[in-house]
Amino acid sequence: MKIGGQATRTIWVEADGATVGIIDQTQLPHRVVMSRLVTLEDAARAIKTMQVRGAPLIGATAAYGVCLALREDASDENLERACATLLATRPTAINLKWALDEMTAAVRNRPRGERAAAAYRRAAEICDEDVAINEAMGRHGVRLIEDIAANKNGERVNILTHCNAGWFATVDFGTATAPIYTAHNRGVPLHVWVDETRPRNQGAALTAFELGQEGVAHTVIADNTGGHLMQHGQVDIVIVGADRVTALGDVCNKIGTYLKALAAHDNGIPFYVALPSPTIDFSIGDGVAEIPIEERAGEEVASMRGRTADGRIETVRVVPDDSPVANYAFDVTPARLVSGLITERGVITANREALANAFPERTNDATAMQRTGTR
Amino acid sequence: MKIGGQATRTIWVEADGATVGIIDQTQLPHRVVMSRLVTLEDAARAIKTMQVRGAPLIGATAAYGVCLALREDASDENLERACATLLATRPTAINLKWALDEMTAAVRNRPRGERAAAAYRRAAEICDEDVAINEAMGRHGVRLIEDIAANKNGERVNILTHCNAGWFATVDFGTATAPIYTAHNRGVPLHVWVDETRPRNQGAALTAFELGQEGVAHTVIADNTGGHLMQHGQVDIVIVGADRVTALGDVCNKIGTYLKALAAHDNGIPFYVALPSPTIDFSIGDGVAEIPIEERAGEEVASMRGRTADGRIETVRVVPDDSPVANYAFDVTPARLVSGLITERGVITANREALANAFPERTNDATAMQRTGTR
Repeated sequence: MKIGGQATRTIWVEADGATVGIIDQTQLPHRVVMSRLVTLEDAARAIKTMQVRGAPLIGATAAYGVCLALREDASDENLERACATLLATRPTAINLKWALDEMTAAVRNRPRGERAAAAYRRAAEICDEDVAINEAMGRHGVRLIEDIAANKNGERVNILTHCNAGWFATVDFGTATAPIYTAHNRGVPLHVWVDETRPRNQGAALTAFELGQEGVAHTVIADNTGGHLMQHGQVDIVIVGADRVTALGDVCNKIGTYLKALAAHDNGIPFYVALPSPTIDFSIGDGVAEIPIEERAGEEVASMRGRTADGRIETVRVVPDDSPVANYAFDVTPARLVSGLITERGVITANREALANAFPERTNDATAMQRTGTR
Repeated sequence: MKIGGQATRTIWVEADGATVGIIDQTQLPHRVVMSRLVTLEDAARAIKTMQVRGAPLIGATAAYGVCLALREDASDENLERACATLLATRPTAINLKWALDEMTAAVRNRPRGERAAAAYRRAAEICDEDVAINEAMGRHGVRLIEDIAANKNGERVNILTHCNAGWFATVDFGTATAPIYTAHNRGVPLHVWVDETRPRNQGAALTAFELGQEGVAHTVIADNTGGHLMQHGQVDIVIVGADRVTALGDVCNKIGTYLKALAAHDNGIPFYVALPSPTIDFSIGDGVAEIPIEERAGEEVASMRGRTADGRIETVRVVPDDSPVANYAFDVTPARLVSGLITERGVITANREALANAFPERTNDATAMQRTGTR
């Protein structure tokens, strides 16, 4: 997608063929800063400090983190160390583990001298696959928007989204935004309500920014607002991304997603989740009970970072000094509240049978799932 | 309640017997600034700019606004002008209209020379009545907390609240906080989850501050967090305030309240609304259809005000410059999601019969309500 009219991905190999470029997303929307990852530690830090975030992009960055590690030392020990370091950066996104497993499989049986090159090839494939998957999700998901548009007599379709499941969360094109960009490119009149998504404001900082760069009409709202809009007919469809989806179709996504799903359900509004299949964790069933929810620093809630009137970037505290703060990063939306899952293989129902039918090759995972039971 | 250990109300007549003191709530939690209202315009501005806010305190400030106007000119015309000016400050809180009606009734049939003194007497009564009402709500509502505590074997009761329905929203003691302070004073172990309440952060800035000053255990959370906590057994009861409650028991309160009510309902957690009876609007029935929802400046969403590390108060922009912003201040929670209304006359069911039975003297209002139909 574009920044300042120039097409770019969110992660790329630099001209030296080894170091890795990223957009430092903590600087958006105020500054567009490119950053270079040279070592495994750089990659781990970029994930941990959320210079890169979003389940698919975390996976892609972890893949290149393995490349950077193997470039220095291609031993089994270093491969294991790299995977352990990267796995420890963020606990929720399943794509992280998926990407590390893919990378390990790609290099494990090769001689040391070939490992780094093989790693770079597999990392590039993972990135290209992500883009292809997102484009496929766009082709499947756009029908949902077009069907609504067909009944609106030329009025714009109002879509609500939460957090950033846009191209900044992926290598390119985005997950929840894929159907939106596809519809926009086809000339469907639409408008996106963008939840600001406290505490880190990925909606306001990233989704609003990327929609603006692509010329998509949108309005930023406080996270509290979606229910009111839905009660008053101002939302036609909700489309969000996911950090992990269980074998039963429970959806772990940015904290607050569950509240929007409840409001959509209460108002009879379709609630869809767009996800690439690496986001599906066939090894677990009950998302509320089984998915570990990352707790992040309270400082993210207690403070807000932004630009002053005279252009400085400042962090301001908004909570009394003595007040404790809690910061849960994700919540789980039970499958019963999900109208459907937009995947690269089509829009499918959020239940065990539909997921297993759509992804039959993941039977090993499915066997593990049996152990956890169904509900 | 206390600031720095010193008991104070949120509004008072100064030693000169005429001008009116308030706490400038836009400066909290970083600075405690007292401000003096000298003219009608001062009072109107204090309400409009939210130096004072919260339905009961808006009513009390409007009452003193009438006093300040009549002190300068006690004519019928000026009384009308004062009421019109004050009524235009905020559209949602019904207490504002109620207080102006009370003030008009108190002075209308008196000679001009007696009007100002009568106005100050009635304004003082309105304040004292508010305190008495809140204390009564505390006595009734505390039983809900004590009943939960009785089943927790000494573990603390976890209460979630939204926005500030604390003493800063009233003359003293608060509405939603009245049962909490009463329970705390009786030694019931409890802990309050405080929604930060974007966009104006009244939860983090005011509720957390006042709970801290009173020594009540609490934790500030992003507004997105309540559903997750409820799914995991971390919330025993939700208690919020109200800006207007209809004859059918629909509750208009700070934007986002509806989302928490949905989550409480989905998890079988009691959801209570504390309100003084002046907050009930017997003239309307369907809250979603009939209550006008205030739209405020987008700047409140696009910016955040807080304290920098070196102690300056700064406003920082958190939304891209070109992105439009919408700012709805309230939403409506349908009565079906409300477990009960904590009023000065007891905890009552959120429906037409219970409200009419509890407040039979408001039959004129009730007649008006009949015209709007029931559902």
